[in-house]
Amino acid sequence: MSNPPATPTNNKTKYLSELKELLRIPSISTQPEHKKDILMAAEWLKNHLAKIGLNNCKVMKTAGHPIVYADYLLAKDKPTVLIYGHYDVQPPEPLESWNTPPFEPTEKNGNLYGRGTSDDKAQIFAHIKAIDAIMSATEKLPVNVKFLIEGEEEVGGPSLDKFIIDNKKMLSADVCVISDSHSLSPTQPLIEYGLRGMAYMQIDLSTFENDVHSGLYGGNVPNVAIELANIISKLKDEKTQKILIPGFYDNVRKLTAKEKQALNKTPLTKKAIMEETGAKTTIGLVGASIPERCGALPALDVNGFFSGYTGEGSKTIIPAKASAKISMRLVPNQSSAEIAKKFATYIKRVTPKYVGVTVKTLNTGEPILMDTSSIYFKKAEEVFIKTFGNKPIYVLDGASIPVTSVIKRVLNIDSILMGFGLPDDGLHSPNEKISLEMFYKGIETSISYLSAL
Amino acid sequence: MSNPPATPTNNKTKYLSELKELLRIPSISTQPEHKKDILMAAEWLKNHLAKIGLNNCKVMKTAGHPIVYADYLLAKDKPTVLIYGHYDVQPPEPLESWNTPPFEPTEKNGNLYGRGTSDDKAQIFAHIKAIDAIMSATEKLPVNVKFLIEGEEEVGGPSLDKFIIDNKKMLSADVCVISDSHSLSPTQPLIEYGLRGMAYMQIDLSTFENDVHSGLYGGNVPNVAIELANIISKLKDEKTQKILIPGFYDNVRKLTAKEKQALNKTPLTKKAIMEETGAKTTIGLVGASIPERCGALPALDVNGFFSGYTGEGSKTIIPAKASAKISMRLVPNQSSAEIAKKFATYIKRVTPKYVGVTVKTLNTGEPILMDTSSIYFKKAEEVFIKTFGNKPIYVLDGASIPVTSVIKRVLNIDSILMGFGLPDDGLHSPNEKISLEMFYKGIETSISYLSAL
Repeated sequence: MSNPPATPTNNKTKYLSELKELLRIPSISTQPEHKKDILMAAEWLKNHLAKIGLNNCKVMKTAGHPIVYADYLLAKDKPTVLIYGHYDVQPPEPLESWNTPPFEPTEKNGNLYGRGTSDDKAQIFAHIKAIDAIMSATEKLPVNVKFLIEGEEEVGGPSLDKFIIDNKKMLSADVCVISDSHSLSPTQPLIEYGLRGMAYMQIDLSTFENDVHSGLYGGNVPNVAIELANIISKLKDEKTQKILIPGFYDNVRKLTAKEKQALNKTPLTKKAIMEETGAKTTIGLVGASIPERCGALPALDVNGFFSGYTGEGSKTIIPAKASAKISMRLVPNQSSAEIAKKFATYIKRVTPKYVGVTVKTLNTGEPILMDTSSIYFKKAEEVFIKTFGNKPIYVLDGASIPVTSVIKRVLNIDSILMGFGLPDDGLHSPNEKISLEMFYKGIETSISYLSAL
Repeated sequence: MSNPPATPTNNKTKYLSELKELLRIPSISTQPEHKKDILMAAEWLKNHLAKIGLNNCKVMKTAGHPIVYADYLLAKDKPTVLIYGHYDVQPPEPLESWNTPPFEPTEKNGNLYGRGTSDDKAQIFAHIKAIDAIMSATEKLPVNVKFLIEGEEEVGGPSLDKFIIDNKKMLSADVCVISDSHSLSPTQPLIEYGLRGMAYMQIDLSTFENDVHSGLYGGNVPNVAIELANIISKLKDEKTQKILIPGFYDNVRKLTAKEKQALNKTPLTKKAIMEETGAKTTIGLVGASIPERCGALPALDVNGFFSGYTGEGSKTIIPAKASAKISMRLVPNQSSAEIAKKFATYIKRVTPKYVGVTVKTLNTGEPILMDTSSIYFKKAEEVFIKTFGNKPIYVLDGASIPVTSVIKRVLNIDSILMGFGLPDDGLHSPNEKISLEMFYKGIETSISYLSAL
């Protein structure tokens, strides 16, 4: 499209006031008493999308909270952009820690405070307002657009996967845009081009039916907590921090030299990690850099374990049972099923015969790697340079955004993760905020991106 | 004394009816709402001891539940026997598992069922009735006797140690008799001539203030649960089951050849342990027999540990803290203070510098070994042969009876552990019982023992 519409400068006040309407709805997905608010937020979005000129606007039922869909399919011979976001929010508790009411959005020092601002209402609304701005200026969109806005993101909602599979044709697109992350600063955008997957496992060990007396039997019977400790200590080499499960690294993708060089420019330093977590040092696979260990290499963590008596004081028992939750963050081209299987096989091998053992898979998600050479990434880079003033940093993120791998698997498209939040937005915390500068920059970026494709 | 009094055959009914009075008092020491019952049981015993002719009968205050004292000191030039027991009982719960009311003692199939029967009311009452029988027959006792009956045994009562130290002179004696254990069968008595001590420790590890996101930081920061597992796995050699704390075995007393031979006749078999505990095998220090591992060798057990998330499902965190409770059962001539110190030093040595660590001693008790060559043991053996028909088996018990080591340390005397219970009495469980045959045999054994000294 040759004439991109005007930037939304003149409508800032109106856009902000509309955003506040959405933010006032306490659409808390984890609390059943807010079911009405969830429905209200979905209806509000549907009506708003219709009002700005989108078609087929629907609130679609799922087994859980509904999904809002809307589209614009009149840009013949142009690509289709799927825009994903979520309208549900985290509970605001603890309420006493908020400086302003969580559901009364409040402007202060260039920020807008309120639950759900950064995560994810202002971010998805930036795209909606981009489209509003374009439609107002030109009465049409330069590309085809489909909105997929869910209400179960904060509960790890099981409905979305099924919805995407069931509505594969309706959702088909050329690229997905997701704004549910952050930029490094108002002048430094990030592009996450890979996300780790996960295999989350539980080990349950058992030696007897009930705990026994440590005086009578200590020295003669197995101690299941010690057995679990021995097993865990065999998962990682203490010196090299290498994960010892046979074949664990078999399919780990090697970084290209260029990619490695770029990745190591990520401002993810030992100092930053120590400050953010409070750890006294960083520790990880010997020979790998911190950014590599974060997103390009898999990790194994014990998320929790338990055995025997852990109350106050002493209880003289030998425990009968011990359990651990162990998760592995996976990278391309590892498969969660294959890793879960290797894990279970290894655990069973290193568990003595006199210990009963079960290994369960609690949760999985596939790692994902985007094709940054595609036109969609090139255009995103160009647009970011224009709106942020700097080339985006390409990072492999250590975390998982499960929807990206479902979209990849089912719809066979990559997701561009355009983060309009900032690192200090306080997601899931009291006094969550979005920078107003970033909200407007988000609208501008979206206008430019949709116009550039 | 040349003429021992008649056995109590004629008074069986009366003695049993008196015991039932005591058993009806729900003197549960762990439940504050039973404080009145505790006092009632103490008063009942004091009055009863006075009625049968003992002197200085008192209910003596402590910071916790009171202690009943009584004595008979008129046997000039005769030894003094301190008789220890406890009048408090475990809670009866779960009530629905009792076939008869726990505080309405009920005779059935030669047993008396009720909470506190075997542990310890009938056992201490057997000595009281032995004295009653002797006094009734001869109006005097053949030895000096002091009763020390506490009310905090079931709560690991802190008052008793202080009481013994504060009343050292009043309690001075030549030997202590404790009936709070069991015989192997109505024809096979046991003499426990050694008991293990204990050092009960807690390890607290910390890497950060709060749990962190396993996606963002997994692979770059320490995992405190894995660190704890590594530490625990360094406590015992997996193959030999040897405890690896430097100097741990330094002071362990070597068994004499004769003692070892006798000890290995103890009917403590692999099969029995597997049946009693449900363990799929026995496991312990390579090269040592099961009875040696039970009472002649120290043991180390993890009694419980905890870290991170252990609820339902998955939570993707790297935990910030991990704790373990670890106890070591000690044998002569180990000292709990020395072992606690060696443990703490070793733990600190094997904990990486980037992990915060504290090691606390929660509880200690000293191991004890009796001098079985003393006249008090010889006489006990003779009396056991007379009343049970068999020579007692001498065993080193794996458990601890802390009062024995306090009595040894403060009063400088050994304790003869005369058990009138049976292995299946169900202490601390529903349907606790004492065999009536064993109750009467206890009275007879006590009469014979006091008369033989």
